[in-house]
Amino acid sequence: MPPAPLSRSGKSRRTTDSPITYFIKKALETPGLVSFAAGLVDEGSLPVDEVRAAATEILSDPRAGQTALQYGSTHGMPELRRQVLDLVCGLDGVNPSDLNLTPNDVCITTGSQQLLYLLGEVMFDPGDIVISEAPSYFVYHSLLQSHGAEVLTVPMDEHGMDVDALDALLDRLRRSGDLPRVKVIYTVDYFQNPTGLTLSLERRKRLVEIAKRYSTAHRILILEDAAYRELKFSGPDLPSIKSFDPANEFVVYTSTFSKPCAPGLKTGYAILPPDVLAPILHLKGSHDFGSTNLSQHLLSRMMASGAYQAHAEKLRTVYRNKRDLMLSALESEFRDFPAARWTVPDGGFYVWFTLDGVDTGPNGPLVPAALEAGVLYVPGEFGHVPDANGHMPKNECRLCYGVATEPEITEGIRRLRKACAAVAAGKPKKEPVGV
Amino acid sequence: MPPAPLSRSGKSRRTTDSPITYFIKKALETPGLVSFAAGLVDEGSLPVDEVRAAATEILSDPRAGQTALQYGSTHGMPELRRQVLDLVCGLDGVNPSDLNLTPNDVCITTGSQQLLYLLGEVMFDPGDIVISEAPSYFVYHSLLQSHGAEVLTVPMDEHGMDVDALDALLDRLRRSGDLPRVKVIYTVDYFQNPTGLTLSLERRKRLVEIAKRYSTAHRILILEDAAYRELKFSGPDLPSIKSFDPANEFVVYTSTFSKPCAPGLKTGYAILPPDVLAPILHLKGSHDFGSTNLSQHLLSRMMASGAYQAHAEKLRTVYRNKRDLMLSALESEFRDFPAARWTVPDGGFYVWFTLDGVDTGPNGPLVPAALEAGVLYVPGEFGHVPDANGHMPKNECRLCYGVATEPEITEGIRRLRKACAAVAAGKPKKEPVGV
Ligand SMILES: Cc1ncc(COP(=O)(O)O)c(C=O)c1O
Ligand SMILES: Cc1ncc(COP(=O)(O)O)c(C=O)c1O
Repeated sequence: MPPAPLSRSGKSRRTTDSPITYFIKKALETPGLVSFAAGLVDEGSLPVDEVRAAATEILSDPRAGQTALQYGSTHGMPELRRQVLDLVCGLDGVNPSDLNLTPNDVCITTGSQQLLYLLGEVMFDPGDIVISEAPSYFVYHSLLQSHGAEVLTVPMDEHGMDVDALDALLDRLRRSGDLPRVKVIYTVDYFQNPTGLTLSLERRKRLVEIAKRYSTAHRILILEDAAYRELKFSGPDLPSIKSFDPANEFVVYTSTFSKPCAPGLKTGYAILPPDVLAPILHLKGSHDFGSTNLSQHLLSRMMASGAYQAHAEKLRTVYRNKRDLMLSALESEFRDFPAARWTVPDGGFYVWFTLDGVDTGPNGPLVPAALEAGVLYVPGEFGHVPDANGHMPKNECRLCYGVATEPEITEGIRRLRKACAAVAAGKPKKEPVGV
Repeated sequence: MPPAPLSRSGKSRRTTDSPITYFIKKALETPGLVSFAAGLVDEGSLPVDEVRAAATEILSDPRAGQTALQYGSTHGMPELRRQVLDLVCGLDGVNPSDLNLTPNDVCITTGSQQLLYLLGEVMFDPGDIVISEAPSYFVYHSLLQSHGAEVLTVPMDEHGMDVDALDALLDRLRRSGDLPRVKVIYTVDYFQNPTGLTLSLERRKRLVEIAKRYSTAHRILILEDAAYRELKFSGPDLPSIKSFDPANEFVVYTSTFSKPCAPGLKTGYAILPPDVLAPILHLKGSHDFGSTNLSQHLLSRMMASGAYQAHAEKLRTVYRNKRDLMLSALESEFRDFPAARWTVPDGGFYVWFTLDGVDTGPNGPLVPAALEAGVLYVPGEFGHVPDANGHMPKNECRLCYGVATEPEITEGIRRLRKACAAVAAGKPKKEPVGV
């Protein structure tokens, strides 16, 4: 006899499996598949030697080793918080004091993902509103679903989030009396996951101005997710949105060591207003009372020695080459395919690929055709939320060149073309062999 | 002009700073203080060499190094899950199949703390009931406060949680119609934090029987927090409560590598029913999509080489010696102090010290007297929740010999005696110098 059923929380009942789980499983099950789906980083360039050197240094000194293996603090290692602040302010060309910041305004989390989660927990009750770009980082959308928050979206163009549309949306919400429910504006402003697009300078300023202007009765925060910022290989140097918030009041800046260094260390960080930080730390005290201390000591050591900076520099070349390869493969395979368009990212590892008139979704013809051809992508619709009428674009693909090797990139795009040709030729949809 | 106020979630508004923060701060500010307050582990015995050896091995092999530095999975490293299952079943003297368990029933978390949090998130809506021992692990109580759960308690004696009282409480709740709100029974069943007490064999069986008996309309889970289990240095070997749940339905077993190995790796685990695991992993996908992968690889390597097991064995001697020192210091200092009683733990690192008639709380006379004498403890009331009349015991102290060195233990107890004598003599309460 089965036991009595569980009686789970509302939050748990709102939380479903990530739609991408199926795709990851598929990829693992299909030998020889080229995966542009997984958001993993390039393997060959992982800083194995650099981490070994840092580990050896720390763990050859009993005192330093003991400190790294003891519990750290909920807030994070003080020296690493100082280094993070210097890193970000260095990228912005300012001094911490110009932005009213000290290392106490920084916290260290289990990847930047944990920060996204914690901020959500601190800010959202069911029914609250988050405004994000369309499309956006789909794991963030799952998280909002757990919190019961409603996602309203603003379109993007080649300059990133359309801030005029944001302004108009907020105005409509004010007029409908819904402004009190608006808590956060979320943007992945550098080489966005999933589109590869970057927010322009002018819009960065406008974004802060807009958030302030609508923060009359309560504060609307901007969540600036700069996960890919350090992987810039072309285009202008753009200051953070945070740098336009000199009193440290409106912008939560978060980034991560996963992309420019190593995801296996699972260490991210945020720079944020003190009255947002304090409640985040109170909750983090219950989540884990501090992220992995050894990872923090390793990263701090690598930043102090310069190994971190040298490695990030190397990665920019690695990913530039991979992007160039993917772009030239797309160019040669899809030149004569008028339905296809794609973005040209200045950093990170995502190309957004649009196919007019082709359903790229999990139930459309392209997924099985691609699997049959031996390639996998993330359906673009996972990054969208349905509009009021239940509609969303279903003709886009996220192509990630993060983990695919250089030969795989060329071969994978060739296979994608094969799949598109098969779909265009109206070949009957058929389940791929072996899955 | 200050910015508009934040409008935070209900959960955030329920979450306050941990009461112990003040005590940790005090300890850091007071030079020369002996701290029996912090729940940190012994520093001198941290496995610095063992972790260095594992790190060198992994990171000298490019393939193994890359795997450890890449993202892992939300569920946790498969090999480590297998090792964890063998470890726990080995302690219980059973085969995984006897308990209907496979490595898929194990998950890896950011310390066992994260498991406690996630299970709470999956199970509790505001107003739900958790039954715990009095006193209990105070960080768990803070977490329940965030979730809005109500804590009802059952007294303990030298055999751990009083299961007859638990039965009676559940019966009362059934009769008052409150049973549907009861979700979890929480017990730290080995060398409990904070009392050092252990649940007896007979009560382990009874606990499962009781949970089953009241699980008529919905399932009541037992959360078995075995954080200190591997640090047993005397007394009988006791099987887990989990081992009395052969169908893997009622008991969530959680433990950690923080205590028997290194908190700086911040890795814990759980063995749990599949219909509890799945929703936990869904939420963990939003929290962080996987705990630090490098830590998992280090631990797996140390378990495979036997370094982990040898180190845990060494720690049992370290903590036995520290316990013996604390007990003999208590014996010699408090023999002639009839108001004082204390527990004798068979493992872990907590002694529970009761002082009849003395207010040990943060606003009582002993805290400042102890600080003046140069010693700090955790007031016992932090482990209690007020009863219906707002009452709770206020004459207990948690004494942790985890991080204090051997000379500090003897000296700290001497100082505690001095503080008690000062309070007993009615010396006027006075703020300690320099704080
Ligand atoms: C936009 C964005 N934000 C945050 C994250 C979280 O990464 P991590 O938790 O490893 O820092 C990712 C990972 O893919 C991402 O793409
Ligand atoms: C009873 C108990 N459970 C769980 C934990 C959590 O420890 P960790 O998250 O390091 O595994 C602790 C730590 O002090 C504890 O005392």
